[in-house]
Amino acid sequence: MTRIGFVGLGSMGLPMAKVLAAKGFAVVGYDIRPGAAQELAAAGGKAADSVGDALAGAELAILMVVNAAQAESVLFDSNAIARLAPGAVVAVMATCPPAKALALASRVRAAGFGFIDAPVSGGVVGATAGALTIMVGASDDDFSRAKNALNAMGSKVVQVGDRPGAGSTAKAINQLLCGVNLAAAGEAMALARKLGVDVSQILDIVSGSAASSWMLRDRGPRMLEDHPRVTSAVDIFVKDLGIVLETGAECGADTPLAAAAHEKFKQASAAGLGAQDDSQVTRAFGELKG
Amino acid sequence: MTRIGFVGLGSMGLPMAKVLAAKGFAVVGYDIRPGAAQELAAAGGKAADSVGDALAGAELAILMVVNAAQAESVLFDSNAIARLAPGAVVAVMATCPPAKALALASRVRAAGFGFIDAPVSGGVVGATAGALTIMVGASDDDFSRAKNALNAMGSKVVQVGDRPGAGSTAKAINQLLCGVNLAAAGEAMALARKLGVDVSQILDIVSGSAASSWMLRDRGPRMLEDHPRVTSAVDIFVKDLGIVLETGAECGADTPLAAAAHEKFKQASAAGLGAQDDSQVTRAFGELKG
Repeated sequence: MTRIGFVGLGSMGLPMAKVLAAKGFAVVGYDIRPGAAQELAAAGGKAADSVGDALAGAELAILMVVNAAQAESVLFDSNAIARLAPGAVVAVMATCPPAKALALASRVRAAGFGFIDAPVSGGVVGATAGALTIMVGASDDDFSRAKNALNAMGSKVVQVGDRPGAGSTAKAINQLLCGVNLAAAGEAMALARKLGVDVSQILDIVSGSAASSWMLRDRGPRMLEDHPRVTSAVDIFVKDLGIVLETGAECGADTPLAAAAHEKFKQASAAGLGAQDDSQVTRAFGELKG
Repeated sequence: MTRIGFVGLGSMGLPMAKVLAAKGFAVVGYDIRPGAAQELAAAGGKAADSVGDALAGAELAILMVVNAAQAESVLFDSNAIARLAPGAVVAVMATCPPAKALALASRVRAAGFGFIDAPVSGGVVGATAGALTIMVGASDDDFSRAKNALNAMGSKVVQVGDRPGAGSTAKAINQLLCGVNLAAAGEAMALARKLGVDVSQILDIVSGSAASSWMLRDRGPRMLEDHPRVTSAVDIFVKDLGIVLETGAECGADTPLAAAAHEKFKQASAAGLGAQDDSQVTRAFGELKG
Protein backbone atom coordinates (compact mmCIF):
# COMPACT_ATOMS: atom_id res chain seq x y z
CA MET A 1 0.00 0.00 0.00
CA THR A 2 1.07 3.58 -0.69
CA ARG A 3 3.01 5.28 2.11
CA ILE A 4 1.20 8.57 2.82
CA GLY A 5 2.34 11.70 4.66
CA PHE A 6 -0.74 13.65 5.80
CA VAL A 7 -0.39 17.26 6.99
CA GLY A 8 -3.40 19.14 8.41
CA LEU A 9 -5.45 17.01 10.83
CA GLY A 10 -8.30 19.45 11.48
CA SER A 11 -12.07 18.88 11.38
CA MET A 12 -11.78 17.56 7.81
CA GLY A 13 -8.21 16.24 7.69
CA LEU A 14 -8.36 14.03 10.77
CA PRO A 15 -11.37 11.96 9.66
CA MET A 16 -9.92 11.72 6.13
CA ALA A 17 -6.60 10.42 7.48
CA LYS A 18 -8.44 8.00 9.79
CA VAL A 19 -10.38 6.60 6.83
CA LEU A 20 -7.10 6.00 4.97
CA ALA A 21 -5.62 4.22 8.01
CA ALA A 22 -8.76 2.12 8.43
CA LYS A 23 -8.50 1.04 4.80
CA GLY A 24 -4.91 -0.16 5.21
CA PHE A 25 -2.84 2.77 4.00
CA ALA A 26 0.35 3.55 5.93
CA VAL A 27 -0.49 7.10 7.04
CA VAL A 28 1.90 9.28 9.00
CA GLY A 29 0.18 12.46 10.19
CA TYR A 30 1.16 15.85 11.49
CA ASP A 31 -0.74 18.90 12.71
CA ILE A 32 0.39 22.04 14.55
CA ARG A 33 -2.27 21.23 17.18
CA PRO A 34 -0.64 18.88 19.69
CA GLY A 35 -2.74 15.75 20.11
CA ALA A 36 -4.23 15.60 16.61
CA ALA A 37 -1.53 13.23 15.33
CA GLN A 38 -2.00 11.08 18.46
CA GLU A 39 -5.69 10.74 17.60
CA LEU A 40 -4.66 9.44 14.19
CA ALA A 41 -2.17 7.05 15.82
CA ALA A 42 -4.94 5.71 18.07
CA ALA A 43 -6.95 4.97 14.91
CA GLY A 44 -4.21 2.94 13.22
CA GLY A 45 -1.98 5.62 11.68
CA LYS A 46 1.31 7.01 12.94
CA ALA A 47 2.07 10.36 14.59
CA ALA A 48 4.93 12.55 13.37
CA ASP A 49 6.57 15.33 15.41
CA SER A 50 7.16 17.61 12.45
CA VAL A 51 6.10 18.19 8.86
CA GLY A 52 9.44 16.80 7.73
CA ASP A 53 8.96 13.58 9.68
CA ALA A 54 5.46 13.18 8.24
CA LEU A 55 6.67 13.57 4.67
CA ALA A 56 9.91 11.56 5.04
CA GLY A 57 9.83 8.72 2.55
CA ALA A 58 6.18 9.31 1.59
CA GLU A 59 5.08 8.35 -1.93
CA LEU A 60 2.00 10.56 -1.56
CA ALA A 61 1.83 13.79 0.44
CA ILE A 62 -1.70 14.95 1.28
CA LEU A 63 -2.12 18.54 2.46
CA MET A 64 -5.45 19.39 4.10
CA VAL A 65 -4.39 22.76 5.48
CA VAL A 66 -6.32 26.04 5.51
CA ASN A 67 -5.20 27.62 2.25
CA ALA A 68 -2.60 27.76 -0.53
CA ALA A 69 -0.18 29.88 1.50
CA GLN A 70 -0.12 27.28 4.29
CA ALA A 71 0.38 24.50 1.75
CA GLU A 72 3.37 26.32 0.27
CA SER A 73 4.78 27.02 3.72
CA VAL A 74 4.42 23.36 4.78
CA LEU A 75 6.30 22.14 1.71
CA PHE A 76 9.02 24.74 1.33
CA ASP A 77 9.70 26.68 4.57
CA SER A 78 11.97 23.95 5.94
CA ASN A 79 12.35 22.21 2.59
CA ALA A 80 10.32 19.28 3.90
CA ILE A 81 9.40 18.46 0.31
CA ALA A 82 12.96 17.23 -0.27
CA ARG A 83 12.31 14.37 2.16
CA LEU A 84 9.58 12.81 0.01
CA ALA A 85 10.33 9.52 -1.74
CA PRO A 86 11.73 9.94 -5.27
CA GLY A 87 8.89 10.42 -7.77
CA ALA A 88 6.35 11.19 -5.04
CA VAL A 89 3.12 13.09 -5.71
CA VAL A 90 1.79 16.05 -3.69
CA ALA A 91 -2.02 16.30 -3.37
CA VAL A 92 -3.33 19.64 -2.13
CA MET A 93 -6.93 19.10 -0.97
CA ALA A 94 -7.47 22.49 0.66
CA THR A 95 -9.66 25.07 -1.11
CA CYS A 96 -7.35 27.37 -3.11
CA PRO A 97 -7.85 29.97 -5.83
CA PRO A 98 -7.25 28.19 -9.18
CA ALA A 99 -4.37 30.55 -10.02
CA LYS A 100 -2.64 29.78 -6.72
CA ALA A 101 -3.07 26.03 -7.17
CA LEU A 102 -1.43 26.37 -10.56
CA ALA A 103 1.49 28.44 -9.17
CA LEU A 104 2.03 25.96 -6.35
CA ALA A 105 2.00 23.09 -8.86
CA SER A 106 4.80 24.77 -10.84
CA ARG A 107 6.97 25.06 -7.77
CA VAL A 108 6.33 21.44 -6.74
CA ARG A 109 7.12 20.20 -10.25
CA ALA A 110 10.31 22.25 -10.33
CA ALA A 111 11.32 20.36 -7.19
CA GLY A 112 10.85 17.11 -9.11
CA PHE A 113 7.49 15.87 -7.83
CA GLY A 114 4.02 15.31 -9.24
CA PHE A 115 1.07 17.52 -8.24
CA ILE A 116 -2.63 16.93 -7.77
CA ASP A 117 -5.09 19.76 -7.27
CA ALA A 118 -7.87 17.90 -5.42
CA PRO A 119 -10.29 19.97 -3.32
CA VAL A 120 -13.28 18.25 -1.71
CA SER A 121 -16.95 18.76 -0.91
CA GLY A 122 -19.07 16.90 1.63
CA GLY A 123 -18.09 18.29 5.00
CA VAL A 124 -17.23 16.38 8.14
CA VAL A 125 -19.98 13.85 7.48
CA GLY A 126 -18.55 13.00 4.05
CA ALA A 127 -14.98 12.98 5.38
CA THR A 128 -15.85 10.58 8.19
CA ALA A 129 -17.72 8.21 5.87
CA GLY A 130 -15.08 8.26 3.12
CA ALA A 131 -17.83 9.68 0.94
CA LEU A 132 -16.42 13.01 -0.20
CA THR A 133 -16.80 14.48 -3.65
CA ILE A 134 -13.21 15.06 -4.85
CA MET A 135 -12.59 17.37 -7.81
CA VAL A 136 -9.27 16.56 -9.43
CA GLY A 137 -7.09 18.67 -11.69
CA ALA A 138 -4.00 16.60 -12.55
CA SER A 139 -2.20 14.84 -15.39
CA ASP A 140 -3.35 11.29 -16.05
CA ASP A 141 -0.04 10.00 -14.72
CA ASP A 142 -0.15 11.93 -11.44
CA PHE A 143 -3.84 11.11 -10.97
CA SER A 144 -3.27 7.39 -11.50
CA ARG A 145 -0.64 7.32 -8.76
CA ALA A 146 -3.02 8.81 -6.17
CA LYS A 147 -6.27 7.26 -7.36
CA ASN A 148 -6.45 4.46 -4.78
CA ALA A 149 -6.03 6.87 -1.89
CA LEU A 150 -8.52 9.37 -3.35
CA ASN A 151 -11.07 6.60 -3.91
CA ALA A 152 -10.64 5.59 -0.27
CA MET A 153 -11.61 9.10 0.90
CA GLY A 154 -14.27 9.90 -1.70
CA SER A 155 -17.34 8.25 -3.18
CA LYS A 156 -17.22 10.54 -6.22
CA VAL A 157 -13.71 11.24 -7.53
CA VAL A 158 -13.85 13.19 -10.78
CA GLN A 159 -10.93 14.30 -12.94
CA VAL A 160 -12.33 17.63 -14.14
CA GLY A 161 -9.21 18.60 -16.07
CA ASP A 162 -5.70 17.40 -16.85
CA ARG A 163 -3.89 20.26 -15.19
CA PRO A 164 -3.76 21.73 -11.69
CA GLY A 165 -6.28 24.56 -11.26
CA ALA A 166 -9.17 22.61 -12.79
CA GLY A 167 -10.10 20.99 -9.48
CA SER A 168 -9.98 24.36 -7.72
CA THR A 169 -12.15 25.85 -10.46
CA ALA A 170 -14.81 23.19 -9.89
CA LYS A 171 -14.54 23.76 -6.15
CA ALA A 172 -15.06 27.52 -6.58
CA ILE A 173 -18.28 26.85 -8.50
CA ASN A 174 -19.31 24.35 -5.83
CA GLN A 175 -18.66 26.86 -3.04
CA LEU A 176 -20.58 29.59 -4.86
CA LEU A 177 -23.65 27.34 -4.70
CA CYS A 178 -23.03 26.14 -1.14
CA GLY A 179 -22.46 29.67 0.16
CA VAL A 180 -25.41 31.26 -1.63
CA ASN A 181 -27.80 28.42 -0.81
CA LEU A 182 -26.72 28.61 2.85
CA ALA A 183 -27.08 32.40 3.03
CA ALA A 184 -30.47 32.13 1.29
CA ALA A 185 -31.59 29.66 3.95
CA GLY A 186 -30.42 32.12 6.60
CA GLU A 187 -32.30 34.97 4.91
CA ALA A 188 -35.47 32.86 4.64
CA MET A 189 -35.39 31.75 8.28
CA ALA A 190 -34.79 35.34 9.42
CA LEU A 191 -37.76 36.48 7.30
CA ALA A 192 -39.94 33.77 8.84
CA ARG A 193 -39.00 34.97 12.33
CA LYS A 194 -39.78 38.58 11.40
CA LEU A 195 -43.17 37.53 10.04
CA GLY A 196 -43.98 35.78 13.29
CA VAL A 197 -44.82 32.41 11.77
CA ASP A 198 -43.90 29.00 13.20
CA VAL A 199 -40.31 28.79 11.94
CA SER A 200 -39.86 25.07 12.47
CA GLN A 201 -43.10 24.34 10.59
CA ILE A 202 -41.94 26.58 7.73
CA LEU A 203 -38.56 24.84 7.70
CA ASP A 204 -40.33 21.50 7.44
CA ILE A 205 -42.40 22.73 4.48
CA VAL A 206 -39.56 24.28 2.47
CA SER A 207 -37.27 21.33 3.17
CA GLY A 208 -39.72 19.15 1.25
CA SER A 209 -40.67 21.52 -1.57
CA ALA A 210 -39.01 22.98 -4.65
CA ALA A 211 -37.39 25.46 -2.23
CA SER A 212 -35.14 22.78 -0.80
CA SER A 213 -31.36 22.55 -0.94
CA TRP A 214 -28.73 20.34 0.67
CA MET A 215 -27.64 23.34 2.75
CA LEU A 216 -31.18 24.16 3.89
CA ARG A 217 -31.80 20.59 5.03
CA ASP A 218 -28.42 20.28 6.75
CA ARG A 219 -28.01 23.74 8.29
CA GLY A 220 -31.66 24.86 8.62
CA PRO A 221 -32.33 22.95 11.85
CA ARG A 222 -29.18 24.42 13.42
CA MET A 223 -30.37 27.93 12.49
CA LEU A 224 -33.15 27.42 15.04
CA GLU A 225 -30.61 26.69 17.81
CA ASP A 226 -28.82 29.38 19.83
CA HIS A 227 -25.51 27.52 20.21
CA PRO A 228 -25.33 24.71 17.67
CA ARG A 229 -22.31 22.45 17.42
CA VAL A 230 -19.76 23.66 14.86
CA THR A 231 -19.38 21.48 11.77
CA SER A 232 -17.90 24.27 9.64
CA ALA A 233 -17.21 27.82 10.76
CA VAL A 234 -18.59 31.11 9.42
CA ASP A 235 -15.00 32.15 8.57
CA ILE A 236 -14.63 29.22 6.13
CA PHE A 237 -17.25 30.85 3.91
CA VAL A 238 -15.67 34.29 4.38
CA LYS A 239 -12.58 32.66 2.84
CA ASP A 240 -14.26 30.43 0.24
CA LEU A 241 -16.66 33.06 -1.12
CA GLY A 242 -13.65 35.39 -1.26
CA ILE A 243 -12.02 32.82 -3.56
CA VAL A 244 -15.22 32.62 -5.62
CA LEU A 245 -15.25 36.40 -6.11
CA GLU A 246 -11.53 36.46 -6.92
CA THR A 247 -12.00 33.65 -9.46
CA GLY A 248 -15.00 35.41 -10.97
CA ALA A 249 -13.20 38.75 -11.21
CA GLU A 250 -10.22 37.15 -12.97
CA CYS A 251 -12.39 35.83 -15.78
CA GLY A 252 -14.81 38.78 -15.94
CA ALA A 253 -17.83 36.89 -14.56
CA ASP A 254 -20.87 38.53 -12.97
CA THR A 255 -21.38 37.15 -9.44
CA PRO A 256 -23.84 39.38 -7.53
CA LEU A 257 -25.39 36.57 -5.47
CA ALA A 258 -22.00 35.32 -4.30
CA ALA A 259 -21.12 38.93 -3.42
CA ALA A 260 -24.33 39.40 -1.41
CA ALA A 261 -23.75 36.12 0.43
CA HIS A 262 -20.09 37.00 1.10
CA GLU A 263 -21.21 40.30 2.63
CA LYS A 264 -23.41 38.41 5.11
CA PHE A 265 -20.69 35.98 6.19
CA LYS A 266 -18.33 38.94 6.64
CA GLN A 267 -20.94 40.79 8.73
CA ALA A 268 -21.42 37.72 10.92
CA SER A 269 -17.64 37.38 11.32
CA ALA A 270 -17.21 41.08 12.11
CA ALA A 271 -19.84 40.72 14.83
CA GLY A 272 -17.74 38.03 16.51
CA LEU A 273 -19.37 34.91 15.07
CA GLY A 274 -16.44 33.88 12.85
CA ALA A 275 -15.67 30.68 14.77
CA GLN A 276 -19.32 29.71 15.22
CA ASP A 277 -21.20 27.22 13.07
CA ASP A 278 -21.87 28.65 9.61
CA SER A 279 -25.63 28.19 10.17
CA GLN A 280 -25.36 31.29 12.37
CA VAL A 281 -25.05 33.45 9.25
CA THR A 282 -28.82 33.75 9.69
CA ARG A 283 -28.06 36.18 12.53
CA ALA A 284 -26.54 38.60 10.01
CA PHE A 285 -30.07 39.08 8.64
CA GLY A 286 -31.35 41.39 11.31
CA GLU A 287 -30.42 39.75 14.62
CA LEU A 288 -26.90 41.00 15.21
CA LYS A 289 -26.47 43.34 18.11
CA GLY A 290 -23.72 45.42 16.49
CA MET B 1 -68.61 14.85 -3.78
CA THR B 2 -68.08 18.59 -3.52
CA ARG B 3 -69.22 20.62 -6.52
CA ILE B 4 -66.22 22.76 -7.55
CA GLY B 5 -66.00 25.85 -9.75
CA PHE B 6 -62.42 26.21 -11.03
CA VAL B 7 -61.24 29.49 -12.60
CA GLY B 8 -57.78 29.77 -14.17
CA LEU B 9 -56.85 26.75 -16.29
CA GLY B 10 -53.26 27.69 -17.13
CA SER B 11 -50.09 25.60 -16.91
CA MET B 12 -50.80 24.91 -13.22
CA GLY B 13 -54.60 25.22 -13.03
CA LEU B 14 -55.46 22.82 -15.85
CA PRO B 15 -53.56 19.82 -14.46
CA MET B 16 -54.88 20.60 -10.96
CA ALA B 17 -58.48 20.66 -12.24
CA LYS B 18 -57.89 17.47 -14.21
CA VAL B 19 -56.63 15.70 -11.08
CA LEU B 20 -59.82 16.74 -9.25
CA ALA B 21 -61.97 15.43 -12.10
CA ALA B 22 -60.00 12.18 -12.23
CA LYS B 23 -60.60 11.70 -8.52
CA GLY B 24 -64.36 12.07 -8.88
CA PHE B 25 -64.99 15.71 -8.01
CA ALA B 26 -67.62 17.53 -10.10
CA VAL B 27 -65.41 20.28 -11.56
CA VAL B 28 -66.70 23.04 -13.79
CA GLY B 29 -63.86 25.05 -15.27
CA TYR B 30 -63.37 28.39 -16.97
CA ASP B 31 -60.40 30.21 -18.45
CA ILE B 32 -60.13 33.32 -20.64
CA ARG B 33 -58.14 31.22 -23.12
CA PRO B 34 -60.65 29.52 -25.41
CA GLY B 35 -60.08 25.77 -25.43
CA ALA B 36 -58.70 25.37 -21.92
CA ALA B 37 -62.10 24.50 -20.46
CA GLN B 38 -62.67 22.02 -23.31
CA GLU B 39 -59.43 20.27 -22.36
CA LEU B 40 -60.82 19.90 -18.85
CA ALA B 41 -64.12 18.60 -20.25
CA ALA B 42 -62.23 16.00 -22.28
CA ALA B 43 -60.65 14.82 -19.03
CA GLY B 44 -63.94 14.32 -17.18
CA GLY B 45 -64.76 17.83 -16.00
CA LYS B 46 -67.22 20.34 -17.44
CA ALA B 47 -66.55 23.49 -19.48
CA ALA B 48 -68.20 26.79 -18.55
CA ASP B 49 -68.57 29.78 -20.91
CA SER B 50 -68.08 32.39 -18.22
CA VAL B 51 -66.80 32.85 -14.70
CA GLY B 52 -70.38 33.11 -13.49
CA ASP B 53 -71.34 29.79 -15.07
CA ALA B 54 -68.29 28.11 -13.54
CA LEU B 55 -69.13 29.35 -10.04
CA ALA B 56 -72.93 28.87 -10.27
CA GLY B 57 -73.98 26.52 -7.49
CA ALA B 58 -70.40 25.63 -6.52
CA GLU B 59 -69.70 24.70 -2.88
CA LEU B 60 -66.00 25.35 -3.42
CA ALA B 61 -64.54 27.99 -5.76
CA ILE B 62 -60.89 27.46 -6.66
CA LEU B 63 -59.02 30.39 -8.21
CA MET B 64 -55.68 29.61 -9.86
CA VAL B 65 -55.28 32.93 -11.62
CA VAL B 66 -52.14 35.09 -11.96
CA ASN B 67 -52.42 37.32 -8.92
CA ALA B 68 -54.64 38.84 -6.22
CA ALA B 69 -56.01 41.56 -8.53
CA GLN B 70 -57.23 38.93 -11.01
CA ALA B 71 -58.79 36.90 -8.21
CA GLU B 72 -60.69 39.94 -6.98
CA SER B 73 -61.78 40.80 -10.51
CA VAL B 74 -63.01 37.24 -11.16
CA LEU B 75 -65.15 37.25 -8.02
CA PHE B 76 -66.52 40.78 -7.98
CA ASP B 77 -66.40 42.46 -11.41
CA SER B 78 -69.63 40.80 -12.52
CA ASN B 79 -70.63 39.77 -9.02
CA ALA B 80 -70.05 36.12 -9.97
CA ILE B 81 -69.45 35.38 -6.29
CA ALA B 82 -73.18 35.82 -5.66
CA ARG B 83 -73.88 32.70 -7.74
CA LEU B 84 -71.99 30.39 -5.38
CA ALA B 85 -73.99 27.93 -3.30
CA PRO B 86 -74.98 29.28 0.13
CA GLY B 87 -72.13 28.77 2.60
CA ALA B 88 -69.58 28.11 -0.13
CA VAL B 89 -65.84 28.55 0.40
CA VAL B 90 -63.46 30.44 -1.91
CA ALA B 91 -59.90 29.04 -2.17
CA VAL B 92 -57.34 31.38 -3.74
CA MET B 93 -54.33 29.26 -4.76
CA ALA B 94 -52.45 31.91 -6.74
CA THR B 95 -49.35 33.52 -5.21
CA CYS B 96 -50.44 36.77 -3.53
CA PRO B 97 -48.82 39.20 -1.09
CA PRO B 98 -50.01 38.20 2.41
CA ALA B 99 -51.62 41.62 2.95
CA LYS B 100 -53.61 41.30 -0.28
CA ALA B 101 -54.77 37.78 0.58
CA LEU B 102 -56.03 39.15 3.87
CA ALA B 103 -57.83 42.07 2.21
CA LEU B 104 -59.44 39.76 -0.34
CA ALA B 105 -60.55 37.44 2.47
CA SER B 106 -62.33 40.32 4.20
CA ARG B 107 -64.27 41.18 1.07
CA VAL B 108 -65.23 37.53 0.45
CA ARG B 109 -66.35 37.12 4.06
CA ALA B 110 -68.40 40.32 3.86
CA ALA B 111 -70.20 38.70 0.92
CA GLY B 112 -71.09 35.78 3.18
CA PHE B 113 -68.60 33.13 2.11
CA GLY B 114 -65.64 31.30 3.64
CA PHE B 115 -62.07 31.94 2.48
CA ILE B 116 -58.96 29.82 2.13
CA ASP B 117 -55.54 31.29 1.39
CA ALA B 118 -53.84 28.26 -0.20
CA PRO B 119 -50.84 28.88 -2.45
CA VAL B 120 -48.89 25.92 -3.79
CA SER B 121 -45.36 24.75 -4.58
CA GLY B 122 -44.29 21.92 -6.84
CA GLY B 123 -44.68 23.22 -10.37
CA VAL B 124 -46.35 21.54 -13.32
CA VAL B 125 -44.89 18.17 -12.32
CA GLY B 126 -46.46 18.37 -8.87
CA ALA B 127 -49.74 19.70 -10.24
CA THR B 128 -50.02 16.85 -12.75
CA ALA B 129 -49.24 14.19 -10.16
CA GLY B 130 -51.57 15.63 -7.49
CA ALA B 131 -48.42 15.99 -5.40
CA LEU B 132 -48.28 19.71 -4.67
CA THR B 133 -47.20 21.25 -1.39
CA ILE B 134 -50.20 23.39 -0.33
CA MET B 135 -49.72 26.07 2.34
CA VAL B 136 -53.03 26.89 3.98
CA GLY B 137 -54.08 29.94 5.95
CA ALA B 138 -57.72 29.46 6.97
CA SER B 139 -60.01 28.93 9.93
CA ASP B 140 -60.42 25.31 10.99
CA ASP B 141 -64.02 25.41 9.75
CA ASP B 142 -63.21 26.76 6.27
CA PHE B 143 -60.21 24.41 5.99
CA SER B 144 -62.27 21.36 6.90
CA ARG B 145 -64.75 22.10 4.13
CA ALA B 146 -62.04 22.16 1.44
CA LYS B 147 -59.72 19.53 2.88
CA ASN B 148 -60.77 16.66 0.60
CA ALA B 149 -60.24 18.70 -2.54
CA LEU B 150 -56.89 20.06 -1.31
CA ASN B 151 -55.72 16.56 -0.40
CA ALA B 152 -56.62 15.44 -3.92
CA MET B 153 -54.31 18.08 -5.43
CA GLY B 154 -51.49 17.95 -2.89
CA SER B 155 -49.34 15.36 -1.17
CA LYS B 156 -48.42 17.80 1.60
CA VAL B 157 -51.27 20.03 2.75
CA VAL B 158 -50.24 22.08 5.79
CA GLN B 159 -52.38 24.52 7.75
CA VAL B 160 -49.68 27.08 8.61
CA GLY B 161 -52.06 29.46 10.34
CA ASP B 162 -55.72 29.92 11.18
CA ARG B 163 -56.22 33.09 9.19
CA PRO B 164 -55.82 34.09 5.55
CA GLY B 165 -52.37 35.54 4.86
CA ALA B 166 -50.52 32.75 6.67
CA GLY B 167 -50.44 30.55 3.56
CA SER B 168 -49.19 33.43 1.45
CA THR B 169 -46.53 34.18 4.05
CA ALA B 170 -45.23 30.61 3.84
CA LYS B 171 -45.33 30.84 0.05
CA ALA B 172 -43.28 34.06 0.08
CA ILE B 173 -40.59 32.33 2.14
CA ASN B 174 -40.75 29.35 -0.22
CA GLN B 175 -40.36 31.59 -3.27
CA LEU B 176 -37.44 33.45 -1.72
CA LEU B 177 -35.60 30.13 -1.56
CA CYS B 178 -36.74 28.92 -4.99
CA GLY B 179 -35.83 32.20 -6.68
CA VAL B 180 -32.43 32.62 -5.00
CA ASN B 181 -31.45 28.96 -5.46
CA LEU B 182 -32.44 29.19 -9.14
CA ALA B 183 -30.55 32.44 -9.73
CA ALA B 184 -27.53 30.97 -7.87
CA ALA B 185 -27.61 27.98 -10.23
CA GLY B 186 -27.71 30.42 -13.15
CA GLU B 187 -24.77 32.39 -11.73
CA ALA B 188 -22.76 29.19 -11.16
CA MET B 189 -23.38 27.82 -14.66
CA ALA B 190 -22.45 31.20 -16.20
CA LEU B 191 -19.23 31.22 -14.14
CA ALA B 192 -18.42 27.70 -15.32
CA ARG B 193 -18.84 28.80 -18.94
CA LYS B 194 -16.58 31.84 -18.39
CA LEU B 195 -13.93 29.62 -16.82
CA GLY B 196 -14.00 27.35 -19.86
CA VAL B 197 -14.60 24.12 -17.97
CA ASP B 198 -16.90 21.27 -19.06
CA VAL B 199 -20.22 22.71 -17.88
CA SER B 200 -22.21 19.48 -18.00
CA GLN B 201 -19.52 17.67 -15.98
CA ILE B 202 -19.55 20.49 -13.41
CA LEU B 203 -23.35 20.32 -13.27
CA ASP B 204 -23.13 16.60 -12.61
CA ILE B 205 -20.67 17.17 -9.74
CA VAL B 206 -22.56 19.97 -8.00
CA SER B 207 -25.90 18.18 -8.42
CA GLY B 208 -24.53 15.40 -6.22
CA SER B 209 -22.62 17.45 -3.66
CA ALA B 210 -23.44 19.81 -0.80
CA ALA B 211 -23.95 22.45 -3.50
CA SER B 212 -27.13 20.81 -4.69
CA SER B 213 -30.65 22.18 -4.61
CA TRP B 214 -34.00 21.11 -6.04
CA MET B 215 -33.79 24.05 -8.46
CA LEU B 216 -30.26 23.20 -9.59
CA ARG B 217 -31.21 19.59 -10.32
CA ASP B 218 -34.46 20.54 -12.08
CA ARG B 219 -33.43 23.67 -13.99
CA GLY B 220 -29.66 23.13 -14.33
CA PRO B 221 -29.90 20.78 -17.34
CA ARG B 222 -32.20 23.24 -19.12
CA MET B 223 -29.64 26.04 -18.56
CA LEU B 224 -27.38 24.15 -20.97
CA GLU B 225 -30.06 24.23 -23.71
CA ASP B 226 -30.62 27.18 -26.05
CA HIS B 227 -34.39 26.83 -26.31
CA PRO B 228 -35.67 24.65 -23.47
CA ARG B 229 -39.36 23.90 -23.05
CA VAL B 230 -41.11 26.33 -20.71
CA THR B 231 -42.29 24.84 -17.41
CA SER B 232 -42.43 28.20 -15.62
CA ALA B 233 -41.60 31.57 -17.14
CA VAL B 234 -38.95 34.11 -16.13
CA ASP B 235 -41.75 36.64 -15.48
CA ILE B 236 -43.26 34.43 -12.75
CA PHE B 237 -40.15 35.04 -10.65
CA VAL B 238 -40.17 38.74 -11.53
CA LYS B 239 -43.61 38.74 -9.89
CA ASP B 240 -42.94 36.29 -7.03
CA LEU B 241 -39.64 37.81 -5.90
CA GLY B 242 -41.40 41.18 -6.07
CA ILE B 243 -43.91 39.79 -3.56
CA VAL B 244 -41.03 38.49 -1.41
CA LEU B 245 -39.40 41.94 -1.33
CA GLU B 246 -42.75 43.64 -0.61
CA THR B 247 -43.42 41.17 2.22
CA GLY B 248 -39.92 41.69 3.61
CA ALA B 249 -40.17 45.47 3.44
CA GLU B 250 -43.50 45.45 5.30
CA CYS B 251 -41.99 43.66 8.29
CA GLY B 252 -38.56 45.34 8.18
CA ALA B 253 -36.65 42.24 7.08
CA ASP B 254 -33.25 42.27 5.39
CA THR B 255 -33.43 40.44 2.04
CA PRO B 256 -30.32 41.21 -0.04
CA LEU B 257 -30.14 37.82 -1.76
CA ALA B 258 -33.77 37.97 -2.87
CA ALA B 259 -33.09 41.50 -4.15
CA ALA B 260 -30.02 40.38 -6.13
CA ALA B 261 -31.96 37.46 -7.62
CA HIS B 262 -34.93 39.72 -8.46
CA GLU B 263 -32.59 42.05 -10.31
CA LYS B 264 -31.40 39.17 -12.50
CA PHE B 265 -34.93 37.99 -13.38
CA LYS B 266 -35.85 41.60 -14.21
CA GLN B 267 -32.76 41.94 -16.44
CA ALA B 268 -33.65 38.74 -18.26
CA SER B 269 -37.23 39.96 -18.71
CA ALA B 270 -36.11 43.41 -19.91
CA ALA B 271 -33.92 41.68 -22.51
CA GLY B 272 -36.99 39.96 -23.94
CA LEU B 273 -36.79 36.61 -22.13
CA GLY B 274 -39.83 37.13 -19.89
CA ALA B 275 -41.91 34.37 -21.47
CA GLN B 276 -39.01 31.91 -21.73
CA ASP B 277 -38.28 29.13 -19.27
CA ASP B 278 -37.00 30.52 -15.97
CA SER B 279 -33.78 28.48 -16.38
CA GLN B 280 -32.79 31.15 -18.92
CA VAL B 281 -32.11 33.57 -16.06
CA THR B 282 -28.56 32.22 -16.44
CA ARG B 283 -28.30 34.41 -19.54
CA ALA B 284 -28.61 37.51 -17.34
CA PHE B 285 -25.16 36.63 -15.94
CA GLY B 286 -23.09 37.90 -18.82
CA GLU B 287 -24.70 36.43 -21.92
CA LEU B 288 -27.39 38.97 -22.72
CA LYS B 289 -26.87 40.99 -25.83
CA GLY B 290 -28.46 44.15 -24.36
